[in-house]
Amino acid sequence: MTRDVAIIGQGMTKFQEHWDRGVRELAAEAITEALQDATISHEQVQALFVGSMGRFGGQEHIGALVADYTGLTPIPATRVEAGCACGALAMRSAFLAVLSGLYDIVVACGVEKMTDLTDSGDLISALGAASDQEWELQAGLTFPAVYALMARAHMAKYGTTKEQLAMVSAKNHKNAVNNPKAHFRREFTIQQILQAKMVCAPLGLLDCSPVSDGAAAIVIADSEIAETHECPVWIRGSGHASDTIALQDRPTITNIPAAQVAARKAYEYAEISPDEVDVAEIHDNFTIGELMGLEDLGFVPEGQGGIATEAGETQIEGGKLPVNTSGGLKARGNPIGATGIAQAIEIMLQLRDNAGKRQVEDVEVGLTHSIGGSGATAIVTLLSSKRR
Amino acid sequence: MTRDVAIIGQGMTKFQEHWDRGVRELAAEAITEALQDATISHEQVQALFVGSMGRFGGQEHIGALVADYTGLTPIPATRVEAGCACGALAMRSAFLAVLSGLYDIVVACGVEKMTDLTDSGDLISALGAASDQEWELQAGLTFPAVYALMARAHMAKYGTTKEQLAMVSAKNHKNAVNNPKAHFRREFTIQQILQAKMVCAPLGLLDCSPVSDGAAAIVIADSEIAETHECPVWIRGSGHASDTIALQDRPTITNIPAAQVAARKAYEYAEISPDEVDVAEIHDNFTIGELMGLEDLGFVPEGQGGIATEAGETQIEGGKLPVNTSGGLKARGNPIGATGIAQAIEIMLQLRDNAGKRQVEDVEVGLTHSIGGSGATAIVTLLSSKRR
Repeated sequence: MTRDVAIIGQGMTKFQEHWDRGVRELAAEAITEALQDATISHEQVQALFVGSMGRFGGQEHIGALVADYTGLTPIPATRVEAGCACGALAMRSAFLAVLSGLYDIVVACGVEKMTDLTDSGDLISALGAASDQEWELQAGLTFPAVYALMARAHMAKYGTTKEQLAMVSAKNHKNAVNNPKAHFRREFTIQQILQAKMVCAPLGLLDCSPVSDGAAAIVIADSEIAETHECPVWIRGSGHASDTIALQDRPTITNIPAAQVAARKAYEYAEISPDEVDVAEIHDNFTIGELMGLEDLGFVPEGQGGIATEAGETQIEGGKLPVNTSGGLKARGNPIGATGIAQAIEIMLQLRDNAGKRQVEDVEVGLTHSIGGSGATAIVTLLSSKRR
Repeated sequence: MTRDVAIIGQGMTKFQEHWDRGVRELAAEAITEALQDATISHEQVQALFVGSMGRFGGQEHIGALVADYTGLTPIPATRVEAGCACGALAMRSAFLAVLSGLYDIVVACGVEKMTDLTDSGDLISALGAASDQEWELQAGLTFPAVYALMARAHMAKYGTTKEQLAMVSAKNHKNAVNNPKAHFRREFTIQQILQAKMVCAPLGLLDCSPVSDGAAAIVIADSEIAETHECPVWIRGSGHASDTIALQDRPTITNIPAAQVAARKAYEYAEISPDEVDVAEIHDNFTIGELMGLEDLGFVPEGQGGIATEAGETQIEGGKLPVNTSGGLKARGNPIGATGIAQAIEIMLQLRDNAGKRQVEDVEVGLTHSIGGSGATAIVTLLSSKRR
């Protein structure tokens, strides 16, 4: 009885430091581009979902703000927030909205203007607002520190090496060279990554995603409308799960349990198994995130993320499952709210055979994996060029 | 084909200054009470929606935080935000989620800990984040000032008087005396209200809703589950609309166009007309808000809000349409995120004949009206004891 739902258009700004534009201008650019790509007029859009963490500037009420500056009023505008998973949450909320039958055409947009905060202390506080402020941030546990604890534990338990972490960064930076929308389009050698300034051991500067500004948007529609479009990308499965806000309250810190729950739900919904996935965008906010993601998503056995990466399994050339062909959070950039939508757009380009020099061959199923905080939110989405 | 959806349980903290508790404790109390009221166990809840503006403390990612502290992990937790309409947006999002068919039992919660900010300048900035920060707040146009402009225009255009504004406050304070959950349970005379300290002319201190802490939660379920409960309250209609974020960009400032759009959609959805509504909770963040609401919702002709109030039409005793029997934002209190849910709870109590000394007779249909910012978001919900 459920409706089939597809993405029929995409648009995004370049991810970079946008000193001349704010949240409203960035979001409007991405949405306008997405509507053009979908050949949908502003008047046809029935609802808007905006993912944004928002804490970097003084503005809340970002749903209505974006509807206003994009010329979409008076449609319902909803802003959602779940730390770094904001964008994926906007996509999932839009998906549910179409499933509800109330709407046939909706827009999901993610946006962040991180450089509104220029003081690094303020930036650390803003990012830490996605972790447990009272039990983690106020005790000095910043975000890089949270993931450094996870990385250390992973290394101790499974023998994961700093070199393997560096390989994630090197691969993603290499992929970003061919992505014109990426923030950092340059390669780094393993040696450069290992010698980068230490942020929080074992994570160096080049293990961490950067501070970026940007927006990304997709148009989501019911099958009746989607079927009239040339290359609809079907949302075949979606899973969303929560967990303790603080890392200390979890029985394990070498993986992200919520991601495992979300993945299971998405696979079940789609009736697709991990080995059918051809390409994936995994939440590499820190390099250890990609290794845990590979394991939580069932692509490699527990503890084998580093080994699989070292074996080249996640590379575009010759890899069994190319991961983060866009450059990932690491090199494409991570403007918090925009990231989850940008992941879906990369999968969309791959499915449409539109990914240029970073195109993977014979892609039929792609996956996005978004994590909020240290794993208190996880959202997994399965996209395919084939309708179920 | 659409599902019928009902509210089957409610819980809320007292609205007051809660110096000993934070967002997580307040939300957990409200949700636990709502689940008990619904005779639903934690394990039966399938998704959580949390409305919170959040800017008053250092914590974001409030959906997962609340799921965690209420013992609801690993269910999907979504935080939504739309200024003062956060709570109503959580209710609407939960409604859509059940309509989608993905869930049968969900919780919508609203929560705010406004007293986390004790500096009045910080508080003004936080509240101003729901208006246009760049074009309004930075120019000195605070929230009371935005509504003062609307009040002045309403007075000039329709002859509305300061006394009529004061009558809204007096009525709502009188109603709150009988609401044990209300923040300010005391009466004021018209004279006291007119002589209160001026905030922004024509709005004095007793024309403005207070700074409160609190949480409110409801359990929302599909008809199959709802029908097994004693007094389900059916969500018969829901409308949601957006408008320009800044007041200056609207053709009129003597009403709230988004509220008119949302009301029309809600009435159409429910196939209910304004004259069938027996009781209403209207967004009286400032006294002028209730007068504009009466007009925008079609209860009185344009410009007649003040006259209808003066004629006693909105009083519990002898009124044609009792408004804000709970005490409204003015006297029950306005902990931003919690307000929209608290409105629905008041209507629920009225529909269940559980409103004690403030009970209205023969209530079959009730309405809630929530406004975000100066009207960039409006959400209207129609509730009834009768299924369609």
